Amino acid sequence: MTFSYEKLQDFTYQLFKKIGCPDSQAQTATEVLLSADLRGVDSHGVARLSGYVRLWEKGRINAVPEIKVSYETPSTAVVDGDGGLGLVVAPFAMQVAMEKAKTAGTGWVSVRNSNHYGIAGYHAMMALQEDMIGISLTNASPLVSPTYSKERLLGTNPIAVAIPAKEQPPFVADMATTTAANGKLEILQRKGMDTPSGWVQDKNGNPTTSANGVKEGGALLPLGGDREHGSHKGYALGSVVDIFSAVLSGANYGPWVPPFVAFLDPDPNPVGEGIGHFFGAMRVDAFRPADEFKSHMDNWISRFRAAKPTPGNEKVLIPGDPERELEIERRRHGIPLLDPVVKDLQELGVKFGVDL
Amino acid sequence: MTFSYEKLQDFTYQLFKKIGCPDSQAQTATEVLLSADLRGVDSHGVARLSGYVRLWEKGRINAVPEIKVSYETPSTAVVDGDGGLGLVVAPFAMQVAMEKAKTAGTGWVSVRNSNHYGIAGYHAMMALQEDMIGISLTNASPLVSPTYSKERLLGTNPIAVAIPAKEQPPFVADMATTTAANGKLEILQRKGMDTPSGWVQDKNGNPTTSANGVKEGGALLPLGGDREHGSHKGYALGSVVDIFSAVLSGANYGPWVPPFVAFLDPDPNPVGEGIGHFFGAMRVDAFRPADEFKSHMDNWISRFRAAKPTPGNEKVLIPGDPERELEIERRRHGIPLLDPVVKDLQELGVKFGVDL
Repeated sequence: MTFSYEKLQDFTYQLFKKIGCPDSQAQTATEVLLSADLRGVDSHGVARLSGYVRLWEKGRINAVPEIKVSYETPSTAVVDGDGGLGLVVAPFAMQVAMEKAKTAGTGWVSVRNSNHYGIAGYHAMMALQEDMIGISLTNASPLVSPTYSKERLLGTNPIAVAIPAKEQPPFVADMATTTAANGKLEILQRKGMDTPSGWVQDKNGNPTTSANGVKEGGALLPLGGDREHGSHKGYALGSVVDIFSAVLSGANYGPWVPPFVAFLDPDPNPVGEGIGHFFGAMRVDAFRPADEFKSHMDNWISRFRAAKPTPGNEKVLIPGDPERELEIERRRHGIPLLDPVVKDLQELGVKFGVDL
Repeated sequence: MTFSYEKLQDFTYQLFKKIGCPDSQAQTATEVLLSADLRGVDSHGVARLSGYVRLWEKGRINAVPEIKVSYETPSTAVVDGDGGLGLVVAPFAMQVAMEKAKTAGTGWVSVRNSNHYGIAGYHAMMALQEDMIGISLTNASPLVSPTYSKERLLGTNPIAVAIPAKEQPPFVADMATTTAANGKLEILQRKGMDTPSGWVQDKNGNPTTSANGVKEGGALLPLGGDREHGSHKGYALGSVVDIFSAVLSGANYGPWVPPFVAFLDPDPNPVGEGIGHFFGAMRVDAFRPADEFKSHMDNWISRFRAAKPTPGNEKVLIPGDPERELEIERRRHGIPLLDPVVKDLQELGVKFGVDL
């Protein structure tokens, strides 16, 4: 079934209001959440709405947080999310980073006591309108095993980087530090298909191609898949994201990150508060005139886009191209939702008295 | 053949002096270059000395550069390397980043008009002694094809991140953004062995397992290997390194980066000056008390090191473990060099009147 953006926007906004979010926070949370559906990261959009609500029902999300800067220097800050929705804590923190950048050239904000923040790319892209480079990292529930580890110790810990250009659309990388994100496994599960090699290991730590591998106690694998293909690099990247997001801020890190699903309880002996994020904003003209930089970005993008393709492929893509095209398409023709997601939203609507 | 660190240090220092480097720059260049041999990145150490000398002979390296800050804000700077050895330009720029961090909390420096800077990790690790997190990126000669590209448009563009701990040794990630670094191909070439899948494509853009694939006009592949295994992520990371290092500073980027080998001429229509680097320094106590941070890093490291290993593997490693162990071993028992490297150094020694 396909829904207009406006329909899902209204539904989501009403729902956030019903759980007690102040008006402006409900608006922000809605925009951030639905940016995932627009950009094709379906696993992180409205499909997760009931997950957020269940965490609120468990008392694990504070609908009326007092988000505040708890420490700062000219170019850094630590933000305490007060247990709020990551969907509102993250834009607050990114804004702090951008304000810092205005005076210090760059701004870097580590966040504790937050929850899942939607897609990483949304927050990084906030910097674009100010001619800044935006960076957004977050840790997440442990589903990933480091190289040689049987245990799950890291989240899919994404990295997003948004870089402005002039005539060209911006460069926007937004990627999990695993070979494949969990959403891709769910698609294969529904189709009853196997995964490619290097995506998953089973609960004994052996490679598997079962799309149910993670569900059955196994783990997602760091980008690279195995040591021979560089999984120690994906592991290192995911670790850096974890440390910047949580060890710098005082959030939970590694295996202590609270699970997103409400039916699993957080560790009774946490090492910090909530989950952690990390944001960066670099003013382009803190390095060279913005116009000059953006012209060279146009040149960079044009050259890469014009590269001769490999056999069987049409063209070389610039990071952000597929998501941008999908957003245009979905704003125009609507957002397709899977039947179980529609059913889930309908049940949620009945419970809270909001029509889908 | 095995050489003591002191022997190679003396030889390298004398050689840098012979090409006209001022005393302190010759010392720095020697220390940086040999840190690669100590840490087991043999392709980036003394084996490259004759390569640097040939670039100097061609007039492409300035032995007496006036390295300077050409632009700055409280937390950023652009450094002009004046065509000097990256081995001396990079530590200068990293020092600038660290000075900025002392007052602004963090420091970020983009560098133009430089040359190859040895191993990325050396510069990142400079931050550790000041209880800072160090970041070091560089672009490099185009040997890597983006996902779906037949053409080589990126270098192996490494990312290094060094993070201090308390009782534990520091976390030090230092990795090319490709599945495998070029040095690994050279080892397989010498052994007459094939590569694993996902390392190389041939000159037509088809996957190959030939260790000579790159030599014969093919390319190294971004971390991930192919689209199904996430090569678009390795491509995005290598691109970010390129843009931060060169588009921010005004160096050459992408396919315009000058080749390291002296027998290939740089592009006659450059888009910037020399090659580019990017450095970051973040004072840990710009976020939370350093002692608190470092205690949590100890906890992070201990927990990951104690993870149950997968079948057939002894233990989970922390990024930096293998290099640190090798450094202890090689400082004690010497640095093994391959016969062709020894021959190359002997010829260099004869030419410049320095004994190996």
